[in-house]
Amino acid sequence: MSDLIHFEDLAPGQEYDLGALTVTKDDIIEFAEEFDPQPFHLDEAAGKASILGGLAASGWHTASLVMRLLATGFLNKTAGRGSPGINELQWKRPVFPGDTLTAKAEVLETKAMRSKPDLGIASVRVTATNQHGVEVLKWENPILFARREAAP
Amino acid sequence: MSDLIHFEDLAPGQEYDLGALTVTKDDIIEFAEEFDPQPFHLDEAAGKASILGGLAASGWHTASLVMRLLATGFLNKTAGRGSPGINELQWKRPVFPGDTLTAKAEVLETKAMRSKPDLGIASVRVTATNQHGVEVLKWENPILFARREAAP
Repeated sequence: MSDLIHFEDLAPGQEYDLGALTVTKDDIIEFAEEFDPQPFHLDEAAGKASILGGLAASGWHTASLVMRLLATGFLNKTAGRGSPGINELQWKRPVFPGDTLTAKAEVLETKAMRSKPDLGIASVRVTATNQHGVEVLKWENPILFARREAAP
Repeated sequence: MSDLIHFEDLAPGQEYDLGALTVTKDDIIEFAEEFDPQPFHLDEAAGKASILGGLAASGWHTASLVMRLLATGFLNKTAGRGSPGINELQWKRPVFPGDTLTAKAEVLETKAMRSKPDLGIASVRVTATNQHGVEVLKWENPILFARREAAP
């Protein structure tokens, strides 16, 4: 019997704490240089002049950091099989250098897959909150999980 | 008169070519180690055994790469002011080492913002296609743009 969390172990309402991480200014600039070179993600003055109010992380950076928490804090303890996408990704507030993000995952819904009897799909809401208790990021996505036993 | 593309210059139906890039195996593994350490993004054998069919890029990696094309090929030629999120992000097919992704952005809709007379919002669809002509990624997001002149 595998210790990994399988589809049958998931139920709506379950919450998983994903842990926390702190974002540095160097990380923000390095990610932006590689993936999102818009001025307000690269430069303090440009950030301050923008509606973000200061040098702020690329939303894709924040999402990728939270993905790390989701992988290490949840998915790698499961028989997760990947995801086809994200239904809604909200960058609710800017993420600034020194911010500490705490993330959680909530199971919203589970359903069997007709086309693949060895898999099920769970709809998962992922949220990240900063050190002031303010939600900075939210997404919902369907994630595939292996079943312990194939559906009849 | 600024050469940058402003809100007033955008109209539904406009398409912008964002250029192309090639994804390497080292890039895929490096991104996954930092942000998405699930086995099928880290290891050839695990990738082959997965429904992805081979070592494949994290969806967040693919999205971040396409974000680079969107920033360099479009946003940095505009008076873009950031985005509050993504309405729908679809990882339609796996991205494998050596794949070349070509991206484009299409303006779907534009509207003034009541709350901010110096900004407007455009709904933009971003798609990326691999060297076989197969769409691998799609997203839609609202993007803020400065207006040349504030709304009355």
